Amino acid sequence: MGRVVIRGGLVVTAADEIEADVLVEDEKIVALAAGGSTPAETWTAGQVIDATGKYVIPGGVDVHTHMEMPFGGTFASDTFETGTRAAAWGGTTTVVDFAVQTRGRSLREGLDAWHAKAAGRCAIDYGFHMILSDVDDGSLKEMDLLVDEGITSFKLFMAYPGVFYSDDGQILRAMQRAAGNGGTVMMHAENGIAIDVLVEQAVAAGRTDPRYHGEVRKVLLEAEATHRAIQLARVAGDAPLYVVHVSAQEAVAELAAARDAGLPVFGETCPQYLFLSTDNLAEPDFEGAKYVCSTPLRPAAHQAALWRGLRTDDLQVVSTDHCPFCFSGQKELGRGDFSRIPNGLPGVENRMDLLHQAVVDGHLTRRRWIDIACAAPARMFGLYGRKGTIAPGADADIVVYDPAAEQTLSARTHHMNVDYSAYEGKRVTGRVVTVLSRGRTVIEERRYTGHAGHGVFLPRDTCQYVG
Amino acid sequence: MGRVVIRGGLVVTAADEIEADVLVEDEKIVALAAGGSTPAETWTAGQVIDATGKYVIPGGVDVHTHMEMPFGGTFASDTFETGTRAAAWGGTTTVVDFAVQTRGRSLREGLDAWHAKAAGRCAIDYGFHMILSDVDDGSLKEMDLLVDEGITSFKLFMAYPGVFYSDDGQILRAMQRAAGNGGTVMMHAENGIAIDVLVEQAVAAGRTDPRYHGEVRKVLLEAEATHRAIQLARVAGDAPLYVVHVSAQEAVAELAAARDAGLPVFGETCPQYLFLSTDNLAEPDFEGAKYVCSTPLRPAAHQAALWRGLRTDDLQVVSTDHCPFCFSGQKELGRGDFSRIPNGLPGVENRMDLLHQAVVDGHLTRRRWIDIACAAPARMFGLYGRKGTIAPGADADIVVYDPAAEQTLSARTHHMNVDYSAYEGKRVTGRVVTVLSRGRTVIEERRYTGHAGHGVFLPRDTCQYVG
Amino acid sequence: MGRVVIRGGLVVTAADEIEADVLVEDEKIVALAAGGSTPAETWTAGQVIDATGKYVIPGGVDVHTHMEMPFGGTFASDTFETGTRAAAWGGTTTVVDFAVQTRGRSLREGLDAWHAKAAGRCAIDYGFHMILSDVDDGSLKEMDLLVDEGITSFKLFMAYPGVFYSDDGQILRAMQRAAGNGGTVMMHAENGIAIDVLVEQAVAAGRTDPRYHGEVRKVLLEAEATHRAIQLARVAGDAPLYVVHVSAQEAVAELAAARDAGLPVFGETCPQYLFLSTDNLAEPDFEGAKYVCSTPLRPAAHQAALWRGLRTDDLQVVSTDHCPFCFSGQKELGRGDFSRIPNGLPGVENRMDLLHQAVVDGHLTRRRWIDIACAAPARMFGLYGRKGTIAPGADADIVVYDPAAEQTLSARTHHMNVDYSAYEGKRVTGRVVTVLSRGRTVIEERRYTGHAGHGVFLPRDTCQYVG
Amino acid sequence: MGRVVIRGGLVVTAADEIEADVLVEDEKIVALAAGGSTPAETWTAGQVIDATGKYVIPGGVDVHTHMEMPFGGTFASDTFETGTRAAAWGGTTTVVDFAVQTRGRSLREGLDAWHAKAAGRCAIDYGFHMILSDVDDGSLKEMDLLVDEGITSFKLFMAYPGVFYSDDGQILRAMQRAAGNGGTVMMHAENGIAIDVLVEQAVAAGRTDPRYHGEVRKVLLEAEATHRAIQLARVAGDAPLYVVHVSAQEAVAELAAARDAGLPVFGETCPQYLFLSTDNLAEPDFEGAKYVCSTPLRPAAHQAALWRGLRTDDLQVVSTDHCPFCFSGQKELGRGDFSRIPNGLPGVENRMDLLHQAVVDGHLTRRRWIDIACAAPARMFGLYGRKGTIAPGADADIVVYDPAAEQTLSARTHHMNVDYSAYEGKRVTGRVVTVLSRGRTVIEERRYTGHAGHGVFLPRDTCQYVG
Repeated sequence: MGRVVIRGGLVVTAADEIEADVLVEDEKIVALAAGGSTPAETWTAGQVIDATGKYVIPGGVDVHTHMEMPFGGTFASDTFETGTRAAAWGGTTTVVDFAVQTRGRSLREGLDAWHAKAAGRCAIDYGFHMILSDVDDGSLKEMDLLVDEGITSFKLFMAYPGVFYSDDGQILRAMQRAAGNGGTVMMHAENGIAIDVLVEQAVAAGRTDPRYHGEVRKVLLEAEATHRAIQLARVAGDAPLYVVHVSAQEAVAELAAARDAGLPVFGETCPQYLFLSTDNLAEPDFEGAKYVCSTPLRPAAHQAALWRGLRTDDLQVVSTDHCPFCFSGQKELGRGDFSRIPNGLPGVENRMDLLHQAVVDGHLTRRRWIDIACAAPARMFGLYGRKGTIAPGADADIVVYDPAAEQTLSARTHHMNVDYSAYEGKRVTGRVVTVLSRGRTVIEERRYTGHAGHGVFLPRDTCQYVG
Repeated sequence: MGRVVIRGGLVVTAADEIEADVLVEDEKIVALAAGGSTPAETWTAGQVIDATGKYVIPGGVDVHTHMEMPFGGTFASDTFETGTRAAAWGGTTTVVDFAVQTRGRSLREGLDAWHAKAAGRCAIDYGFHMILSDVDDGSLKEMDLLVDEGITSFKLFMAYPGVFYSDDGQILRAMQRAAGNGGTVMMHAENGIAIDVLVEQAVAAGRTDPRYHGEVRKVLLEAEATHRAIQLARVAGDAPLYVVHVSAQEAVAELAAARDAGLPVFGETCPQYLFLSTDNLAEPDFEGAKYVCSTPLRPAAHQAALWRGLRTDDLQVVSTDHCPFCFSGQKELGRGDFSRIPNGLPGVENRMDLLHQAVVDGHLTRRRWIDIACAAPARMFGLYGRKGTIAPGADADIVVYDPAAEQTLSARTHHMNVDYSAYEGKRVTGRVVTVLSRGRTVIEERRYTGHAGHGVFLPRDTCQYVG
Repeated sequence: MGRVVIRGGLVVTAADEIEADVLVEDEKIVALAAGGSTPAETWTAGQVIDATGKYVIPGGVDVHTHMEMPFGGTFASDTFETGTRAAAWGGTTTVVDFAVQTRGRSLREGLDAWHAKAAGRCAIDYGFHMILSDVDDGSLKEMDLLVDEGITSFKLFMAYPGVFYSDDGQILRAMQRAAGNGGTVMMHAENGIAIDVLVEQAVAAGRTDPRYHGEVRKVLLEAEATHRAIQLARVAGDAPLYVVHVSAQEAVAELAAARDAGLPVFGETCPQYLFLSTDNLAEPDFEGAKYVCSTPLRPAAHQAALWRGLRTDDLQVVSTDHCPFCFSGQKELGRGDFSRIPNGLPGVENRMDLLHQAVVDGHLTRRRWIDIACAAPARMFGLYGRKGTIAPGADADIVVYDPAAEQTLSARTHHMNVDYSAYEGKRVTGRVVTVLSRGRTVIEERRYTGHAGHGVFLPRDTCQYVG
Repeated sequence: MGRVVIRGGLVVTAADEIEADVLVEDEKIVALAAGGSTPAETWTAGQVIDATGKYVIPGGVDVHTHMEMPFGGTFASDTFETGTRAAAWGGTTTVVDFAVQTRGRSLREGLDAWHAKAAGRCAIDYGFHMILSDVDDGSLKEMDLLVDEGITSFKLFMAYPGVFYSDDGQILRAMQRAAGNGGTVMMHAENGIAIDVLVEQAVAAGRTDPRYHGEVRKVLLEAEATHRAIQLARVAGDAPLYVVHVSAQEAVAELAAARDAGLPVFGETCPQYLFLSTDNLAEPDFEGAKYVCSTPLRPAAHQAALWRGLRTDDLQVVSTDHCPFCFSGQKELGRGDFSRIPNGLPGVENRMDLLHQAVVDGHLTRRRWIDIACAAPARMFGLYGRKGTIAPGADADIVVYDPAAEQTLSARTHHMNVDYSAYEGKRVTGRVVTVLSRGRTVIEERRYTGHAGHGVFLPRDTCQYVG
């Protein structure tokens, strides 16, 4: 690949904002030098990117995607090929997806299946978390092996009884194991046992529209499960706990209390909880189905608490939980019964832009934007140093971002393989111009120049916030 | 000065740990390059510093010192010349000291006096906060002018009635003004009115030993004042509030609650609260007087809360409150009456080492060490970018730090102008080797190579955590 | 006086609801017997009161009144004669009023003056709290003497600088003394020093209407002072602290936290905070002045927290803070400057009825009504056993109350000496029928049969909630 | 039965302390009169009890007993005959025991079985709660019927998976039903699913002594379940929730927070948690087995929080959870495996005395003693008015209590059918002298004069704290 130099931009990391040129050699960033300085002037390169007036930022790290995820009898509509390409378009250069253990089968088998899906197809680098569907002596032992292979995080569900659900004893055992092997437990924190009673009651009473999805999955049942997961982690010996897709103010409060106490507890939210609300779930003509995901969208009043949590570091990460299902033929499976709507939204392409819009709107500083979208997720899941920053020695995953460009989000123009956008028609300021993945230009002046198979599997270290 | 290159070290900032060479030109850092990389190899320089096996860290930023401070009829025993030289020995390259308004006189007059004390005498760069002794129409108007001159922070006292004390109305007015002009209010948060009653009762009852200093200045009265300062700041329209020298667990809790609510409230603690306790105040033969400062040292049980607060970012900064008085002739003024002991401890030279010891002890990560000692204080008081980090464009304030060297803290070897050490005999691991201030070597392989007058006054921006 | 028997009613106390006849001999209740039982049947009496269909309740105990109170150059418009007569009309048979120390004079002199005002004029029994205007060695010593005389509670003000205000040192000293002599400190908890700054700013800016009274006396400044008073009481050694006229949700939260911790902290609210709001302060044509009192009326949203506090026992007492000033000639002193409006509302006659309305409205149970209006205030201020309950041995202060009668509150029909009602036109269900004070009928079937001078001074025990 | 008069005592209720004579006719209290008053003097009676120097208090109400309870393959060793007789000896005149639904069978069948066990055998009056072992459509419908029959409270278990355990969905459904029919849900709040993992791990690791019972049933898992139960009750529409046998400080904190928020949440503790600790569980030679119950005994530091909770009304009731198993032959089933030790302690005879000792020790006032032991439990479970107080119209359940007598608790002298005392050798001040149950003397000057079958079944109203 040779040398690339990016000149004249404002390098923004989680810590610094510096006017510097960036020198890339092969796959790595090798040097930064003050713009116009003697050393910068001496750099020659095969490719020179003019970033004048632009930001030069680390490629986004999206640690929560579900490509080709089986759910409710169908599959998420983005493959690793289409999904990672869309990610690149959106300025994201790393995804961490979820390999799924099939009940009754080994973790290994599930992981191998996901490796097979992804290998040779990804436009950008990728890693895997492992979903534990069975917690038993066998899977617990396999956890240790996976940590050694760079699968250092394990997802459990307090929701979805009969599918992914683990009971509190299984959760405790998995957390104990993680406390021993350094793994991180990721938790879908909703009291699914109680929710299923409310779902059944709602459907039996004819409350079947998508908006009832939001009503039965109650705020208190998210907060309760969050609290419970924290207490179980304490009993297990303080394994790191990462609560995924936090949507409710009361759940943020549980995280804040735990963090004030110094516990290794972390929280993620997603753009849909920051920008959408139960108003969307109530859209007529079954359009609300487009916004069905779990945890569900909340009343708009919760958004302020989420933004505040991101500012106060009670929430550390914004990922997408990208799990797209087409409205036509997929979401429609749940007409007449919201409980049969496949859960998930598309978003992997929109995250960096939506969060930049939050900078424009005054919710976040520029540095915090990079922190929650790049640095913190990398650090959380053992990728920092390689990913999430712009520094000598890091992978040359770099985005040249135009903070002044305007665009309109739309299914007509997006690159995700799904027939609708959750943000259709939304105007945002800021746009990705050029993207490097390990030194290779994959988006160049808004043309896709990458290829399936460029992306490699990333074995990950354990959580870099602890130890 | 020309060019300096620092080779082979581990560059540690608040955000990153990278193996990189650092290139300095004149007063600035101009480039970083991966160690052994082509660009690094091409750098030539008049001075090459071998940092192999060492850390390369930003110079420390101590935002709370009192050189030549008048207190209780005497003066702090370090001048700007001796104090800043000692700071350099300890790896600190920036101090922010406190100019004092004399009651009945203008801020300008006080500031000019402090400029006169410091100009031409400092070994390292320095800035000023302004102590408001009178809050009235005149001083409020002067605040705006001082912000324009780079004096962007104003200290008020809820303690010391009759000396520096401001009542709640004065505090409110100063905070309102700061909310308008962008200034930060720094608060000594102790209920001095109540404390003075307890002091008088203790002395009248013959409880005159130094340890009673710790007993009368009660934890609850620090926490109360902290709470009150926060509420007044809210009433004033959310001016940034920075609480100095937090020592009590209950005060940390007040800060944590405020920060969870998203308020622009910040807290500082000092090494003496982290490493010393009321046990020291109780040392016999009046030796306890060496440890008399306000807020006072607390029972050792409070230390865990302070360390936790530093980890959870409920406390952001560790400064020294360096305000030395010799035991002989100064501290002794309070024999027979603890209330007459000059308040203050030496420490400007010890801070970086003590906090590195905290890394060794497992209280902090390396990056958090740099954050609380360099980056966060710089950001808090409008110096970040220039100070507090190692990045192209920043001032070349750089410390080469040997993490493996061992040393014993002692008055016999320290460079502060005071006849005792608060940490006499304490063994610590880690030591400053070489220090650059604005590109100039001021400590070179543990020899002082700087000179009085090298340090320049630093006009500061407003708090970089807000806006 | 002889014997009175009250037959056929439902006796309601703080603890019980029983169908019982009540036998009075001379000044005391001597027996209760189940209605229709043999012993009840045998009772003969000179006066038989038929309470069929009515409640038989303890006479109300209003522990916060200000008859003839000097304030802002005028005097509260009810004398002890008119005010206690109105109290009797409203079913209240005990008031505890506030004797005032004049600055620079002794407590004794102030107390004597109040004894002189009240002696021979009261329709019902009365006691005194003592307002401390000076806290110094002399007044502290006098506190002990007053406790011995049955003046067991001492009021301090964190508001009204220059008038009643005590600083935190004075508060601490008074609390220490109370911790020693068993007295209770009553606190007006508002940060008056800060409020006065806001008052001055408002008036200077032309914000002079009555509603600005509510705006400048901020919720946060009530909550802050409440918090501070609690902390000072802890420092003082846990003297009982009784916070008067709590109006803000945030202040209730401070009390709740203190009580959860087991501290002897108590709170009072008043009907005006439960039934009125800042909407009243904003009434046009200076009518808002009728509702000017301190703490001020709050936005209506605070009412729910006050009702909840009364239910959860985080607030224990409802008194009136009865301090009437006529609109004409008195309230009007503040036209053009809200800070000159005499602070206070009439209410001594309305309390029992308004709180019964709260029973009708579902805010309180019947027993809690009697608790907060009779039993708890008696217990708080050392009168329980004699006052506040219906039990053998208690004073025969008894109200026969018709829970079904309807009435309209109005200045046209009330008996307070003031030209307006704060509740003009309000319809309530429930009305006093007959009132006994120490066995003597003072209201008989809604005719006044009492006389000035029937009421006697009540020396009080110390707080019966502690020790 | 005729007439009984109790003369010369101090009548102590939850609200009052009065020197009064008490007149009983047949089963009821008909009158109270001041001692020495004319009406009291006129009373004649077949039985005159001299209570001079004694307390006259309501009979105790113990709302948590398990007579003949099947557990772990054996039965609690007290029958309704022996257990209620022992209760009478201890000054308790009402017990509410637990009828058990057998899994797969109806509530009716379980209730009938318990009626059959108790009918004709009890020395004192008794009621039943119903344990729900299955929550399904059938049992939910039966709940309504039972409420109509005076079984107004339903116990669920978050512990004991496979035995009594209900999952969160079942709990939610039962709470919803209770919110509709007025019933109260009683909760054993421990996360039994997680505990069972820890039990299994402990036993597998050879940690089989009784003290491990206390270690595996962790404080955090009681607090967690308490929190969860409260949240589920909120989701269910605020049915009253009564948490049984609270033992952990952190669980008290959950209750306090809920009560501050005004939720209808209540808590019970038991003498064993107030007077015993994990030190007892650690007694050698398997003696610790005597103290095995669930929730388990806690470290002694928790006791202060329980006493405080009782004073602050965050805990309302002290019952015994009386469930005795002989050491010999029953407790011994768990030698070598603590998990096989039958869970339960004897205590029904000791409660009133132990709580009086708490009065002597300064933990409680006399009135609070009566409140938590008599009035509050009666009110909680719909018996107040009949039980729990001394007032005209109430059942003549009266205890003459000697506050000065001393006694030593011992299995040698107690009347419970169990071969050990949990308080063996403990000296207490205060003793029951005489006990009336519905007007009949069952203990007379410390002789048992009652008989099996005197006690009648008590249909109960719903919770008298709500509605």
